[in-house]
Amino acid sequence: MSEKIRFIQGNEACVEGALYAGIEFFAGYPITPSTEIAEHLSQRLPERGGKFIQMEDEIASMCAIIGASLTGRKVMTATSGPGFSLKQEAIGYACMTEIPCVIANVQRGGPSTGNPTHVSQGDVNQARWGTHGDHSIIALTASNHQDIFNITIDAFNLAETYRTPVILLLDESIGHLREKLTIPEKGKIQIVDRLRTSLGKGVDYHPYLPREDGRLPMSDFGGEHRYNVTGLFHDMWGFPSNKPEVVYDLLRHINDKIESDVNAITRYKEHFIDDAEYIFISYGSSARSAIHLAKERRTKGERIGVLELQSIWPFPKELIREKCANAKAVLVVEMNMGQVMAQVKAAVHKPDKVFLANRIDGKLITPADINKLLRVIQGRGV
Amino acid sequence: MSEKIRFIQGNEACVEGALYAGIEFFAGYPITPSTEIAEHLSQRLPERGGKFIQMEDEIASMCAIIGASLTGRKVMTATSGPGFSLKQEAIGYACMTEIPCVIANVQRGGPSTGNPTHVSQGDVNQARWGTHGDHSIIALTASNHQDIFNITIDAFNLAETYRTPVILLLDESIGHLREKLTIPEKGKIQIVDRLRTSLGKGVDYHPYLPREDGRLPMSDFGGEHRYNVTGLFHDMWGFPSNKPEVVYDLLRHINDKIESDVNAITRYKEHFIDDAEYIFISYGSSARSAIHLAKERRTKGERIGVLELQSIWPFPKELIREKCANAKAVLVVEMNMGQVMAQVKAAVHKPDKVFLANRIDGKLITPADINKLLRVIQGRGV
Amino acid sequence: MSEKIRFIQGNEACVEGALYAGIEFFAGYPITPSTEIAEHLSQRLPERGGKFIQMEDEIASMCAIIGASLTGRKVMTATSGPGFSLKQEAIGYACMTEIPCVIANVQRGGPSTGNPTHVSQGDVNQARWGTHGDHSIIALTASNHQDIFNITIDAFNLAETYRTPVILLLDESIGHLREKLTIPEKGKIQIVDRLRTSLGKGVDYHPYLPREDGRLPMSDFGGEHRYNVTGLFHDMWGFPSNKPEVVYDLLRHINDKIESDVNAITRYKEHFIDDAEYIFISYGSSARSAIHLAKERRTKGERIGVLELQSIWPFPKELIREKCANAKAVLVVEMNMGQVMAQVKAAVHKPDKVFLANRIDGKLITPADINKLLRVIQGRGV
Amino acid sequence: MSEKIRFIQGNEACVEGALYAGIEFFAGYPITPSTEIAEHLSQRLPERGGKFIQMEDEIASMCAIIGASLTGRKVMTATSGPGFSLKQEAIGYACMTEIPCVIANVQRGGPSTGNPTHVSQGDVNQARWGTHGDHSIIALTASNHQDIFNITIDAFNLAETYRTPVILLLDESIGHLREKLTIPEKGKIQIVDRLRTSLGKGVDYHPYLPREDGRLPMSDFGGEHRYNVTGLFHDMWGFPSNKPEVVYDLLRHINDKIESDVNAITRYKEHFIDDAEYIFISYGSSARSAIHLAKERRTKGERIGVLELQSIWPFPKELIREKCANAKAVLVVEMNMGQVMAQVKAAVHKPDKVFLANRIDGKLITPADINKLLRVIQGRGV
Repeated sequence: MSEKIRFIQGNEACVEGALYAGIEFFAGYPITPSTEIAEHLSQRLPERGGKFIQMEDEIASMCAIIGASLTGRKVMTATSGPGFSLKQEAIGYACMTEIPCVIANVQRGGPSTGNPTHVSQGDVNQARWGTHGDHSIIALTASNHQDIFNITIDAFNLAETYRTPVILLLDESIGHLREKLTIPEKGKIQIVDRLRTSLGKGVDYHPYLPREDGRLPMSDFGGEHRYNVTGLFHDMWGFPSNKPEVVYDLLRHINDKIESDVNAITRYKEHFIDDAEYIFISYGSSARSAIHLAKERRTKGERIGVLELQSIWPFPKELIREKCANAKAVLVVEMNMGQVMAQVKAAVHKPDKVFLANRIDGKLITPADINKLLRVIQGRGV
Repeated sequence: MSEKIRFIQGNEACVEGALYAGIEFFAGYPITPSTEIAEHLSQRLPERGGKFIQMEDEIASMCAIIGASLTGRKVMTATSGPGFSLKQEAIGYACMTEIPCVIANVQRGGPSTGNPTHVSQGDVNQARWGTHGDHSIIALTASNHQDIFNITIDAFNLAETYRTPVILLLDESIGHLREKLTIPEKGKIQIVDRLRTSLGKGVDYHPYLPREDGRLPMSDFGGEHRYNVTGLFHDMWGFPSNKPEVVYDLLRHINDKIESDVNAITRYKEHFIDDAEYIFISYGSSARSAIHLAKERRTKGERIGVLELQSIWPFPKELIREKCANAKAVLVVEMNMGQVMAQVKAAVHKPDKVFLANRIDGKLITPADINKLLRVIQGRGV
Repeated sequence: MSEKIRFIQGNEACVEGALYAGIEFFAGYPITPSTEIAEHLSQRLPERGGKFIQMEDEIASMCAIIGASLTGRKVMTATSGPGFSLKQEAIGYACMTEIPCVIANVQRGGPSTGNPTHVSQGDVNQARWGTHGDHSIIALTASNHQDIFNITIDAFNLAETYRTPVILLLDESIGHLREKLTIPEKGKIQIVDRLRTSLGKGVDYHPYLPREDGRLPMSDFGGEHRYNVTGLFHDMWGFPSNKPEVVYDLLRHINDKIESDVNAITRYKEHFIDDAEYIFISYGSSARSAIHLAKERRTKGERIGVLELQSIWPFPKELIREKCANAKAVLVVEMNMGQVMAQVKAAVHKPDKVFLANRIDGKLITPADINKLLRVIQGRGV
Repeated sequence: MSEKIRFIQGNEACVEGALYAGIEFFAGYPITPSTEIAEHLSQRLPERGGKFIQMEDEIASMCAIIGASLTGRKVMTATSGPGFSLKQEAIGYACMTEIPCVIANVQRGGPSTGNPTHVSQGDVNQARWGTHGDHSIIALTASNHQDIFNITIDAFNLAETYRTPVILLLDESIGHLREKLTIPEKGKIQIVDRLRTSLGKGVDYHPYLPREDGRLPMSDFGGEHRYNVTGLFHDMWGFPSNKPEVVYDLLRHINDKIESDVNAITRYKEHFIDDAEYIFISYGSSARSAIHLAKERRTKGERIGVLELQSIWPFPKELIREKCANAKAVLVVEMNMGQVMAQVKAAVHKPDKVFLANRIDGKLITPADINKLLRVIQGRGV
């Protein structure tokens, strides 16, 4: 497979990334604005021997990919707001049982059925806290198609590396926008494959005992090893336990494997940050407007920079504290009521210097919108 | 009905509160450690002409109470972690459609099926962010049976006042503990009943247009008025709309009606706060240990106070900033990885003075546990 | 003697250090966990013409080495908690009479007979204040066998240099642990031998008059010079005096010769201190856990450093103030109730940033223990 | 017994206090400047049916009073510096076994045999840290004979209340000074008698299990109950244990019973503190000079106050922080190298405002000495 250039929607870029990463199984239920992901995979997956199933609903879809992953397949599902809410219980199950899987949520306006074909970034906190109980999660995002492609590959890689569900937090504008994507030839981007145990058949296998490097080798379920899977707290064999030390250790493990490795997981891009007096922090389609404005104001000599987040969870607190250390003000540009903004406030030394530049009416935030808010913050009025 | 004294479990105190508040309909699916709520209501509700239905699952239970509420009934469901996750999509629907209902979540250890009969307070953030899209929520809690009784009544009252789902965030220890409850005679505690429109039949009714006092009169669905109900963004009649100004106004409305009234909604108790050098902030069963320790250390002359939260969402930021202004350190005592702690950090002037005194292994945090952590924080070691 | 490699216990590493330093006389009474020091010396000393005596008790042992030192021999005794208490009166005598000697205290849990074969670092303050009256002391420690070897040589060297008792504060875990020791060939490490007066026989010798460089030449007792020895305050000949100026000068001298030379006496190691946000200060076996944790967290990008003290008394106040100047927090990792921690608090600019990460139940503090306390201090809970 | 007035030495005032408190047994070995305590008790104790024994040395004396106390008697010993060092091992035994006893240390100049008939306050830290292992201690002191009488009674009362050794830290000047003492009639001052268990013979008695009020009822050893006594860590029956939780609990208990009750144990006197710009903190004979100077300077309008400590251990940290909150400078007046001064520095908000006004040459510090140091501190030169 040599390099290919295509002109496609963001959702399709996600499909290309999944295929490059080695997806073998997709189960889903259509919902705007994510449907193109299912649509394209329904064609592309069978072509290469993979399986595509349209399930009866979102819950079933989530459960299907969990089961398929256990048998050794790389898996994904895709949905939007209401479907993402329905999947929460099973996402928690995947966290607890440490089953690699990728869930794309192409965000639209919520809550509830909300504002179907209009953009929003309102599910950021739900991606983190949608299921019950302390757990951790990885959530990635991107603002252009090349990055969607890359970040989708990252999602599969991280799911395998950390044995965890990974959320792709896309949004309607980026999902439906068409632009150029260059698909590199095979081998150009590293793929992390399932780490399988090297233990022989019949040997005592510990599916929940991390190796020294932190990784947990898996065994294809139904295969050579005895392998217990339960949503209950469990020991290294997977046997249920409510011993306080077992509960503590597992809870810390499923959180720490991600939170402690935040530096390795964090993905971001810098745009003119070095000498920036004003820093925009943004992600997804809103980052396009932030970058556009920063470029424009630079031509006027204003020292504006953009820190574009490509991973939101685990939240890159240290990164943000460092990058914003010398900024006069930090504007979080997002299309919700300040979900990432609250995290940025908690991260920086001076929370009072953090402002929210947002739009919540289903329209893409524009460079002009941001500029207006910047002026106000600078004391110059709209 | 004259005053009655009973010696019961916390879950039953919740039932008594619901009955006192006028519950007429309960739908649920049993799950430890919430089951006693359903169990007792299955007997008590029919006795007074109410309806009890055990549904096929948690989603159906949530949908059933939404429908029943629309017809003019006071409604509740009860569940625990996994069931609470399953209900998230429908809770978002109730937020968007502004339908009064009460959802009790008697927390157990999570994520997933987790640690069924062991205590946790790990669903605090899920109560706030479990469903997709920006929305607001009311969540109440209590640390003893008299307060569970009162706060359950509050939950029904607030649901009606703000036309919103209200979460009762109980926990296993408080739910299963037996202690005294005094049920006051009828009329002693004020009950907020459904505000019905005074418009006559056939008059143009605007189910989503707030009165001057902010309240939105309802009409029993299927009754005299035309009344559209949709999870989509909608205008004052309930017709779907994606006009930016309609989307903006409704999103602000369903958030502001709660967030702007935080002072009226906030419930809390103070224990020796006035001169406290160290303040414990706690809630639910962990507050019992915090209060116990504070009392004990007071006898040794240590100036420790407890701010016991009985409402967690909307978060009482101003209250906490004020109460903690002079504290040397603030310890948030909770049984999770710091969910309320993060809110407290965001609220106070000096986030560095906020610490987490927690336990996450399924065992109730004890006064001795807190004392040990207090010692560490004071630099005195274990 | 060429380089030798051995795999031995810490107590034996101490023996090897003493032999390398030139020990000629040992008197002691066995007590766990120090007994291996006596055991090995009972064999090794006679082999090279030295003397080993097991005395009737700990007091006699201390008195015996004082007497032997006076006759010009390099001497040591070894004991643990209760024995160390018994030796205090005679240690004060050695301070006052300025007689070089080395006392190893392999610490176990106290007070009293306490927790015989379990580790503790609870005698740090006793090493400083165990005998009555203002005096100063040198106390050294180490966390691995190579360092025990080196620091034992240092102990003998410092005892001779400053004419003072030197305490070796080892602990049970390090004393009983087996690991590799490389014994360098003779001459590789500098040995400080007894400084004898160059005055001829019959010349007026001043045993308590320091030379310009501060050192006080000795004469072998019973030899060529008149040499008075008394525990009373005394003049330069050793004659008792209660003249205020004599008392003042001697008291200042026996304190200042050590306290004023703290920089020359201080021994420590740095591990990743340069950019550290969190600094662990530790010593002895607990330092092993601190270093282990720091290394581990470094791989996660956390900027943790360890300042490992190898001398505790005189306390290296300036060193600690400097090294901790930019730290967010300083955790003193020790197995007692905060004895070194109190010194660190007194040393640094911001005592509120100093915390105690300790364990006091006879079990070695582990990296996981420290990590948990670090989390609590960071406000992140257990 | 009606009120009596006598003109006596401080050591005799201590004897009168001990007799008033109900001493029944004294064992000791004579040492200047404490000998008058033994001397007078050798006459007075037998007169009232008590026992006086001169033992062969200081260690035996300490062991004798421990044994006598176990049999139900109120006991004391008295010594000075070198004898106090010798007693340290057995004092630790009394801490660990929780045996009430009083040890008077009439301080003279140290270290070692030091400066026998000259004053010092150099054993303050030894009283706290003289025996090995973390433990706590109560140490009282006084500056005049009425207070010596009272504080000696307190010493016996506190020993019984907390089942602990109590140190009386007197000094040569106050011990040998003669002044008036008024001995109140019996019943005027409350006496705390041995709390004996109310359990019947043969009932399972837990000698180390505190009652709800924190006190531990005793049984006369050799009497009706099985009663194990060991210097090893032990459980509630007194059986040795090295279980970490037993070790932790006992170590915390023997420390906390004293440290946590610091407010109840603290004894002090205020002299003109309220509006003081300069505060002297002192104790024992040096406090006499401090008070004298303060009175004198008050007549010149200088706002000087004295905080006279009558209990040094547990150190009254909170008291000192509060009292010194508004002082321009704090001068610790003592006759050592700053042992209490270091504690004061650790207690106050601004350690830089704490100075040491001391004398260490065996002469009593005078008002003129203190005044000179005060001038220097005020920038006015000597």
